Amino acid sequence: MENHMEMSMSFWRAVFAEFYGTMFFVFFGLGAALRWTTGPHNVLHVAFCFGLAAATFIQSIGHISGGHINPAVTFAYLIGSQMSLFRAFFYIIAQCLGALAGAAVLYGVTPNNMRGNLALNTLQPGISLGMATTIEIFLTLQLVVCIFAVTDERRNGRLGSAALAIGFSVLMGHLLGMYYTGAGMNPARSFAPAVLVRNFVNHWVYWVGPMIGGAMGALLYDFMLFPRFRGLSERLATLKGARSPEADGQQDTRGEPIELKTQAL
Amino acid sequence: MENHMEMSMSFWRAVFAEFYGTMFFVFFGLGAALRWTTGPHNVLHVAFCFGLAAATFIQSIGHISGGHINPAVTFAYLIGSQMSLFRAFFYIIAQCLGALAGAAVLYGVTPNNMRGNLALNTLQPGISLGMATTIEIFLTLQLVVCIFAVTDERRNGRLGSAALAIGFSVLMGHLLGMYYTGAGMNPARSFAPAVLVRNFVNHWVYWVGPMIGGAMGALLYDFMLFPRFRGLSERLATLKGARSPEADGQQDTRGEPIELKTQAL
Amino acid sequence: MENHMEMSMSFWRAVFAEFYGTMFFVFFGLGAALRWTTGPHNVLHVAFCFGLAAATFIQSIGHISGGHINPAVTFAYLIGSQMSLFRAFFYIIAQCLGALAGAAVLYGVTPNNMRGNLALNTLQPGISLGMATTIEIFLTLQLVVCIFAVTDERRNGRLGSAALAIGFSVLMGHLLGMYYTGAGMNPARSFAPAVLVRNFVNHWVYWVGPMIGGAMGALLYDFMLFPRFRGLSERLATLKGARSPEADGQQDTRGEPIELKTQAL
Amino acid sequence: MENHMEMSMSFWRAVFAEFYGTMFFVFFGLGAALRWTTGPHNVLHVAFCFGLAAATFIQSIGHISGGHINPAVTFAYLIGSQMSLFRAFFYIIAQCLGALAGAAVLYGVTPNNMRGNLALNTLQPGISLGMATTIEIFLTLQLVVCIFAVTDERRNGRLGSAALAIGFSVLMGHLLGMYYTGAGMNPARSFAPAVLVRNFVNHWVYWVGPMIGGAMGALLYDFMLFPRFRGLSERLATLKGARSPEADGQQDTRGEPIELKTQAL
Repeated sequence: MENHMEMSMSFWRAVFAEFYGTMFFVFFGLGAALRWTTGPHNVLHVAFCFGLAAATFIQSIGHISGGHINPAVTFAYLIGSQMSLFRAFFYIIAQCLGALAGAAVLYGVTPNNMRGNLALNTLQPGISLGMATTIEIFLTLQLVVCIFAVTDERRNGRLGSAALAIGFSVLMGHLLGMYYTGAGMNPARSFAPAVLVRNFVNHWVYWVGPMIGGAMGALLYDFMLFPRFRGLSERLATLKGARSPEADGQQDTRGEPIELKTQAL
Repeated sequence: MENHMEMSMSFWRAVFAEFYGTMFFVFFGLGAALRWTTGPHNVLHVAFCFGLAAATFIQSIGHISGGHINPAVTFAYLIGSQMSLFRAFFYIIAQCLGALAGAAVLYGVTPNNMRGNLALNTLQPGISLGMATTIEIFLTLQLVVCIFAVTDERRNGRLGSAALAIGFSVLMGHLLGMYYTGAGMNPARSFAPAVLVRNFVNHWVYWVGPMIGGAMGALLYDFMLFPRFRGLSERLATLKGARSPEADGQQDTRGEPIELKTQAL
Repeated sequence: MENHMEMSMSFWRAVFAEFYGTMFFVFFGLGAALRWTTGPHNVLHVAFCFGLAAATFIQSIGHISGGHINPAVTFAYLIGSQMSLFRAFFYIIAQCLGALAGAAVLYGVTPNNMRGNLALNTLQPGISLGMATTIEIFLTLQLVVCIFAVTDERRNGRLGSAALAIGFSVLMGHLLGMYYTGAGMNPARSFAPAVLVRNFVNHWVYWVGPMIGGAMGALLYDFMLFPRFRGLSERLATLKGARSPEADGQQDTRGEPIELKTQAL
Repeated sequence: MENHMEMSMSFWRAVFAEFYGTMFFVFFGLGAALRWTTGPHNVLHVAFCFGLAAATFIQSIGHISGGHINPAVTFAYLIGSQMSLFRAFFYIIAQCLGALAGAAVLYGVTPNNMRGNLALNTLQPGISLGMATTIEIFLTLQLVVCIFAVTDERRNGRLGSAALAIGFSVLMGHLLGMYYTGAGMNPARSFAPAVLVRNFVNHWVYWVGPMIGGAMGALLYDFMLFPRFRGLSERLATLKGARSPEADGQQDTRGEPIELKTQAL
């Protein structure tokens, strides 16, 4: 039944929204991270661009797809049994294709001599693979816990903008992470320049780290910090797509938005 | 009927508000973008001034005119059939005159040796006309999608300040765009220094790019991301001013504010 | 009757809150503006400290006194007939004494060689008195219009934090104004270092400019942008303190907070 | 009875949340404050990381534990009779252990040559012990007043995000405090690097200053700025844990969150 619903227009709109959001997130983030000036890299500048890009595009598509724009976030929602495998699969495909499109457009509009390695994520001097993976885990874990917390429909109070809170979590992550791994936090963001400049050295770190971090964040939030008591059968039903966890939820505050039957009115 | 209503005081107040907002936006943005120090331009500084100026003046006049302060945004609302041609025409006139006024005041209060080219938008070294136009399209497209999303009256949830979200979209755009085109995103902002320093080289890029980007953003949001099912006749009626799309909307969340009949109480 | 009410505890608490807010605003703002490093002044750093200090202290005392922490803002509320002369007088006294206290503590905790001129506002090279006064008028005008707009109880919608919006208006003002006048925008902030370093050269600019700008902002908002139709007798009654404009208003959104009769419960 | 309730799962979840929040706050803050570049320290960068880390982790755990992540804040809530001694004791233990854990992980993932003194708080040149203690008092006092104000359940209005307002108060404190004491404001943040690099010179300043500042902030807010008329017996009952001040309060807006009986539904 949900599979049928998922084939609907609103499902494909959500997938397209993830494509749009990740494409623009990667376009702006990578573009600001190119080496425009000599001298030390302006980490604050780059961190602001990634952080505010996350805030802007989550704000733009949050009500359409949930605004993941990050395979590690989609994976975290999957681990938290808040979306179906079917939906998660298409979201991640759309995010990777979107990131490639964004990086390709950036490549096209940037003069040869400025392209460099298209802001490829690389291990900074002195950082081992173990250190790098740990950093990526921590970066993504805090992001996912923040996302789960600010979109938790059981909360109320003075929360302000969820998109901005998530954007600031991304920004903060870059303020530290750029000195270690260039700050991946998002496999799609790391994937796109790797493909375009054909450099996959240590690329697995930028998938394994964020995926572990995302999963740990989801489990930490859902089982230790603020447990959601749902039975195993209910969780499995959500994963299989037979039951939407948002059916009784609120728009704009969960992994998948509710179906907006009224939007045609 | 709407034409009659549009001749009312509140219509001219809205036009004046656009003049005020654009004048101050341009005054502060251009002023911060002058070359106050030697060495590399502090892009983060300039981007913050443009972004927070957008946030501040949209916050200041959003309930009066909708807070466009940008011909490309007004054009996007027109393409989205959310305002009348009549209103759009006067908004754009007011924005351009406001930008000229802001730039003129800036010219007057700035010492000769600091004026430079009044922060004229120019193509950076190595950027072709095609690259520049593409960048301007992308900059404005993401801005318009963000504006349409945060002011969409069909949403609810943890949205925070619409004006701040839009300001951060402007800020982020500058963090990338300044390296390519100086970051126009707003034809009125580009127009004012061009007039004052009489330099219209490649000036069309700063009109064509944002207008295409604005229109594409409006169409993308209204037809693909989050469709608004309105009939053609309804859209035409709005464009002609015979029907206000805000008649049944909410204040502060749309292109044109509703008429505030109660404000005299 | 209002005079009687104003002698109450809550009136003096509001006056004390203005003292507290302005003392800390000036302490943090001036402190960050000292010349801690050689090389060009980090304008972005200083602007952030003034802006976020405004946001923080308005957030801290907004429900107690309205959170003016600026004689020009109090003057603007007076011109807008939104507070009594009696209250405005004590607010401005408290703001000036608070600013002096903040600057004095800063003087005491700062090593001799770092004190400099305690971040005294001065005209930058090439700026005439006329240019400086114009800049101060523009800086304060936009601030007051923003304050009136974000605290207007007739609005609703996605406004976010009023204190943050005002803080960002202060921040933006510094990003431009520091290059011209050092960015006064607030006579109490300019007054305190002038007293402590005994330098009143051109000091009048930092009173006349903001007071004119504040008054113009109030008149612009109240008579042109978003008129408030109140009779002259009603306005005079407010000024004399015989009628509180907040009697039927909302807490946290006006110049003076309403009396919180229920707070003892 | 409350002691019994405090032994419940939700009590230990709150203690764990303080561990989590302080661990990550210290990990990101210290990490960004390491000397990654030569030349003058980028104070704005470090201040942003501490400030946005505070915002992010308070946003993440505010509904679970109140989001103190700072022994001085817990102490302020104790002085304000808003939490039990029992709870305060475990919060502070969890915060110190969390800070140690965060600093230890940072130590492990950072190359030898970059560790330096792990961003240990030290008195800057020319700053006496008296100056330093005064600065720490002022830094923490303004933070606690801001926290009490933005989480005051008696307020309503345009408050925006409480976590972000607190984060910006932390950020602003760093913009000044780093030039004097390195900006402690939080004994757990100061404690962790002192243990790891075994340097306790003047360490007491970073406990005494924030604790005095926190207590003064609580008393200032509760007795002078916005009094809470509660009897002595009621205050004692809260301290002993026999009465939760949140029993009739709102979630997300107080020192301790209310027990969420409904969360299992």
